Amino acid sequence: MSEAIRVVVDAMGGDNAPGELVKGAVDSLQGHDNIHIILTGKKAAIEQELAKMNAPKGRIEIVDCSEVIETAEPAVNAIRTKKDSSLVVGLQMVKKGEADAIVSAGNSGAVLVGGQAIVGRIKGIERPALAPVIPTEKGFSLLIDCGANVDARASHLVQFAQMGSIYMEQVLGVKNPRVGIVNIGAEEEKGNALVKETFPLLKSCPGINFIGSVEARDIPAGVCDVIVCEAFVGNVILKLYEGVGGTLIHMVKGSLMKNLKTKIGAALIQSSLKETLKAFDGSQYGGAPLLGLKGLVVKTHGSSKAREVSTSIHQCEQFKQQNINEIITNNLM
Amino acid sequence: MSEAIRVVVDAMGGDNAPGELVKGAVDSLQGHDNIHIILTGKKAAIEQELAKMNAPKGRIEIVDCSEVIETAEPAVNAIRTKKDSSLVVGLQMVKKGEADAIVSAGNSGAVLVGGQAIVGRIKGIERPALAPVIPTEKGFSLLIDCGANVDARASHLVQFAQMGSIYMEQVLGVKNPRVGIVNIGAEEEKGNALVKETFPLLKSCPGINFIGSVEARDIPAGVCDVIVCEAFVGNVILKLYEGVGGTLIHMVKGSLMKNLKTKIGAALIQSSLKETLKAFDGSQYGGAPLLGLKGLVVKTHGSSKAREVSTSIHQCEQFKQQNINEIITNNLM
Repeated sequence: MSEAIRVVVDAMGGDNAPGELVKGAVDSLQGHDNIHIILTGKKAAIEQELAKMNAPKGRIEIVDCSEVIETAEPAVNAIRTKKDSSLVVGLQMVKKGEADAIVSAGNSGAVLVGGQAIVGRIKGIERPALAPVIPTEKGFSLLIDCGANVDARASHLVQFAQMGSIYMEQVLGVKNPRVGIVNIGAEEEKGNALVKETFPLLKSCPGINFIGSVEARDIPAGVCDVIVCEAFVGNVILKLYEGVGGTLIHMVKGSLMKNLKTKIGAALIQSSLKETLKAFDGSQYGGAPLLGLKGLVVKTHGSSKAREVSTSIHQCEQFKQQNINEIITNNLM
Repeated sequence: MSEAIRVVVDAMGGDNAPGELVKGAVDSLQGHDNIHIILTGKKAAIEQELAKMNAPKGRIEIVDCSEVIETAEPAVNAIRTKKDSSLVVGLQMVKKGEADAIVSAGNSGAVLVGGQAIVGRIKGIERPALAPVIPTEKGFSLLIDCGANVDARASHLVQFAQMGSIYMEQVLGVKNPRVGIVNIGAEEEKGNALVKETFPLLKSCPGINFIGSVEARDIPAGVCDVIVCEAFVGNVILKLYEGVGGTLIHMVKGSLMKNLKTKIGAALIQSSLKETLKAFDGSQYGGAPLLGLKGLVVKTHGSSKAREVSTSIHQCEQFKQQNINEIITNNLM
């Protein structure tokens, strides 16, 4: 049996806390004998949820916390003042080596700020990066960085490309992942100052499969595996992806409910359409890792259900087993 | 009868040149007695197209040009060397006041570079901006800037907000348009250095209806009318909009063709779905104006058909009749 992996689940974070968080944690244990779960949060509420489930004995630990960081709270202040919150306590456990990873569906800003401030960066990594998976027509791509640190430098983007490639290959199983930089044209001379400075650095960077510029139009078709950009642009891409997708699906559904004829048609296409739209739903791939930290911090959607939580925990297992942080560290030398 | 408006149509630009360009020009005259069209391009080819149509006498002029700028040509060089191209000749006519506006579906870079270099900026405008209309669930928004000039300064973005508001109100008929700045959070303290610097300037800018930050997720829902951003981000938004929309529609159509049952369903929903998707097609709103120039340059999609060309010509008419450039100039004082 391989080494145990200890994952903290922030049981109080997200729209569906604690129910779906606890359920996801319990579900993740099935068939994964190495996982040990630490649930941080209000003990009574967590125990109440656990009582509903058939949780295996001895593999789930509860660490009682008196505070909760709310979704809309200012992040820096929340991390500084709520020392006994489920998130801060969990991050402290990762920092002290009492846990390998933490999964949180809570306040995004607090997860990002707390991850950096409490867990800390790997030596040599200038900046951690949040790397969610986005769905494409062919499968998925990793979008790095969508984090909280804007105004990146070229050297940051090069490290993002390296860390993203390692994660994509070792954790998500994509061999020799194609790396592209988000640009406003396909040619090397196109771009803003940051992209122009980064392009030749990526071109000469060993150990990555750099394929050049990627236009936003081609991202949904799956034109590359690791999409490198600075956080402002990454955030715009991630959010617009959700926005356009959500609006279009809403409009398509509306057109199906227009009259009796379309409703009959809708009944006939329903299962096929549902299957198609499910393929374009990023949540099946679990949460977004904050790469470059001494330990793993995974941010899942605020609306996460048990399945996404469970998938995120399995990501953490894979991350530990593949020694991702050791590979990242060795890569820097 | 109000003043005549003379519009150049670059008959050789775009995937469907000259046929759809010539047809769009002829169509635009119907019911619009003030429009006078100048078709620039290869005379023989244009005359051949005109011969197929019932073009009104005396309202269409042809200016013969021996050269054509191809879609993929490097823009700066093309503008510099192809002096007798349909685009350069047309831009020169606008510069000399022989025409009020030009519509081109040709090489985007060449239209942007040529517009600035040949037609020139309005005095006081630091930078022109390309402002396409994007569809939303409720109607449409103006996205400014999606042009070729990246790495904008805060003062540029303020002028974009002003010009965009004027255009949205006077040409597209949206009263007191809501202006938002693209940001990675709704709060004033969020953003990169450029957005943080621009935000208070927009807040204190007279004559615009600034509503604050807009997250990319909310753009498709139509949360504001004038979406201000620098060109790199604007280009990403515009292209990703097309990309996600195109991919999702392609996937939905695929799910409808899966088997006999879904094909029957597809037949029943077809017209309703088509109508819905048409509402989410930006081309119905015509081309994108390059605002801030001494004259009007409108860039339409490379794939434009006659309808988009005709709509773009009517945009030019509205632009002239509403004295947009005078309003922009007065606004700067």
